Amino acid sequence: MIPSRPQSPGAGPGRRTLIGGGLASLAAAGAGVVVGRESLGDQSASSELSNSAQDSPVPAGELKYEFYADRQTGVAEEPQPYATLIALDLKDGAGREELQRLMRIWTDDSARLMSGAGPLTDQEPELAKRTSGLTITVGWGPTLFAKAELEEVQPTWAKPLPAFDKDSLDPAYVGGDLVLQIAAHSPMTVAHAQQELINGAETLVDIRWIQTGFREPMERNGWSMRNLFGQVDGTVQPVIDGMDSGLVWQEEGQEPGWDNATAMVIRRIAMDMASWERADRPARENAIGRDLSDGAPITGGGADANADLEATNDLGLRVINPAAHIRRAAAVEPHQRFLRRPYQFHESVGTQMQTGLIFIAFQTDPVRQFVPVQQRLDEADLLNIWTQAVGSALFAILPGVAPGGYLGEQFLEG
Amino acid sequence: MIPSRPQSPGAGPGRRTLIGGGLASLAAAGAGVVVGRESLGDQSASSELSNSAQDSPVPAGELKYEFYADRQTGVAEEPQPYATLIALDLKDGAGREELQRLMRIWTDDSARLMSGAGPLTDQEPELAKRTSGLTITVGWGPTLFAKAELEEVQPTWAKPLPAFDKDSLDPAYVGGDLVLQIAAHSPMTVAHAQQELINGAETLVDIRWIQTGFREPMERNGWSMRNLFGQVDGTVQPVIDGMDSGLVWQEEGQEPGWDNATAMVIRRIAMDMASWERADRPARENAIGRDLSDGAPITGGGADANADLEATNDLGLRVINPAAHIRRAAAVEPHQRFLRRPYQFHESVGTQMQTGLIFIAFQTDPVRQFVPVQQRLDEADLLNIWTQAVGSALFAILPGVAPGGYLGEQFLEG
Repeated sequence: MIPSRPQSPGAGPGRRTLIGGGLASLAAAGAGVVVGRESLGDQSASSELSNSAQDSPVPAGELKYEFYADRQTGVAEEPQPYATLIALDLKDGAGREELQRLMRIWTDDSARLMSGAGPLTDQEPELAKRTSGLTITVGWGPTLFAKAELEEVQPTWAKPLPAFDKDSLDPAYVGGDLVLQIAAHSPMTVAHAQQELINGAETLVDIRWIQTGFREPMERNGWSMRNLFGQVDGTVQPVIDGMDSGLVWQEEGQEPGWDNATAMVIRRIAMDMASWERADRPARENAIGRDLSDGAPITGGGADANADLEATNDLGLRVINPAAHIRRAAAVEPHQRFLRRPYQFHESVGTQMQTGLIFIAFQTDPVRQFVPVQQRLDEADLLNIWTQAVGSALFAILPGVAPGGYLGEQFLEG
Repeated sequence: MIPSRPQSPGAGPGRRTLIGGGLASLAAAGAGVVVGRESLGDQSASSELSNSAQDSPVPAGELKYEFYADRQTGVAEEPQPYATLIALDLKDGAGREELQRLMRIWTDDSARLMSGAGPLTDQEPELAKRTSGLTITVGWGPTLFAKAELEEVQPTWAKPLPAFDKDSLDPAYVGGDLVLQIAAHSPMTVAHAQQELINGAETLVDIRWIQTGFREPMERNGWSMRNLFGQVDGTVQPVIDGMDSGLVWQEEGQEPGWDNATAMVIRRIAMDMASWERADRPARENAIGRDLSDGAPITGGGADANADLEATNDLGLRVINPAAHIRRAAAVEPHQRFLRRPYQFHESVGTQMQTGLIFIAFQTDPVRQFVPVQQRLDEADLLNIWTQAVGSALFAILPGVAPGGYLGEQFLEG
């Protein structure tokens, strides 16, 4: 997610450098692996932000992110257009030792794939060469900790999301001991990385679910990122590289061992295109509280303006409907914000298309941030007429790792 | 497909111009709608060919092709990375009149979508604005002609493909009265166009099958287009804008009314990744007859070199295996060539991935061109160990149309 507000130079610990990349990464990463770009001021940062990877002087196929860092990739970086999310369960009887082996394999495979080399066992290393801004993100689900005798280090927030009345969950898209998020500027790169990471893990884990999605780049050259309902989506975001970093990244001492971790919420939301097509534009704009043409709140301003939730019309009625999505989703407290990084899905099942959104949110504490917002949406949200959550999962995204180490080693050694 | 040989200037009737595009189209199109670029010589043409749309100064999202032309788009243009193919059947009892209505709707909708305007009934016209090099290609299947009382104009080659022994066809992916090929540089653009074209047709047709695929751009900046087996694919192609135009486009008087038509073969080919992973590189290279690292024939030269099918090794054995794919697929007669424009698929079905290739070939006469090659591959091809056709269809891609007309009007009027 690219914050639309200007960056404050030097606000984060540094900028993760794209190896061979002309696109500024927004990741605040650790000093060990980072080539600093602190000389970037507001001006140059925002001019870089106006170029998408597609328009970058460096072809998107050659973009590379560094795996080894204080924080994992795939969170703060500009969202790549293609992603596969895979939830996996430890095989029956597998425990801490198998998890340790898996983390070692995935660390090495991910570092190699992101560098363009391919894992040691890769039989199609040519498919690894075009890195296309590949990021691989690894997380642990609430159910993993007991299986791996790691209850002592389970963060307080690493527990299943509460039930929501409006959800209609398909067990095939709920939960998981582990998650892999694989994202890149090319679906070929995603497919190959997926193939290799699953090959390396198949004796240790079973796949629980797979979700594949795509998205347009964020606002670039006057284009907005929209979902398949045509709505502008993802405009207002925390400034994760600056003042709101603590909303996304665990800070020192919050949960021992989890500094620089984040919590990932994944909600699979089915969108009923057939009934949406029967709603006219005024009904749609009333439901959302935003103008469809540019995504601006219907009370005025630009797409990133704050909505005037109190504004009334000539009749004294609220301009923004009491159940409009924009009102119900608004943060009531400043901490009720989180980083959204959603993908669309549009898949054929037989001769029907299934359409929807893979809602992905990153935050420090989902119990304080995501849950109260979702509870408000569950109580009342006009968009619920056309949308329904069919999948739900939460994972603790592990802190990053330095070269020579492996993901989760602070919990698995000794 | 981009031919790797230099273009001969002025060999075709002209170049279709990308409206607002910096990417040279390779389409040879009619004079009515074309802004000529005859000044392009070999040098400039080949330098344009070294830029992919991704690297073009014009962002891929803003690329536009003109719908109205002598020939339809989606054949000769540089293959866009995303495509959906939809086969449809006229509803029971529907005939010529319904077909005429459908052709009028799809003509108008396609012209509008490709121009960035969206159909008149479009409720999300904002999703149409980013054209991303959208092409929409419409064809008629062999079964359509009798249903629409059009047997008199059915081309001799517009008949079902013969049975092949090695095929294992799933009826869900076979045949169809009509086809829509929707391709673009963005899956959002493809999804929206698909939604609109199907909405406009739903009272007239039923969907028979849907196939969605992706591909890397062709050889660019040293990258090759590869399939999910890691093989370089699509290197040797007819020079469709020049001397081989007659291999792809119907010429005057060949079949009355079908000038500038082409025949489209679609074969859905499942690729068994699990067993492919057990084959080592020498076995793979022997099966294909090409070096995996660069796609060059194992008898030497570059990726676009001709294989030396007669070369022998020290033991007097053929260097290229008698059943190697490169040998079996080679054109025995010069006319046994066709334009390939394949896409990959990599889809989850539950917790399994289905991997494969949507093989698409365009040619003037499939009976003379595609069928003899496929019969040779059916008799013997080492790649058959890991691949199997599960879908098969053939369509007559209609000639293009001038503004004010509609696709197929020469057959449907009067």
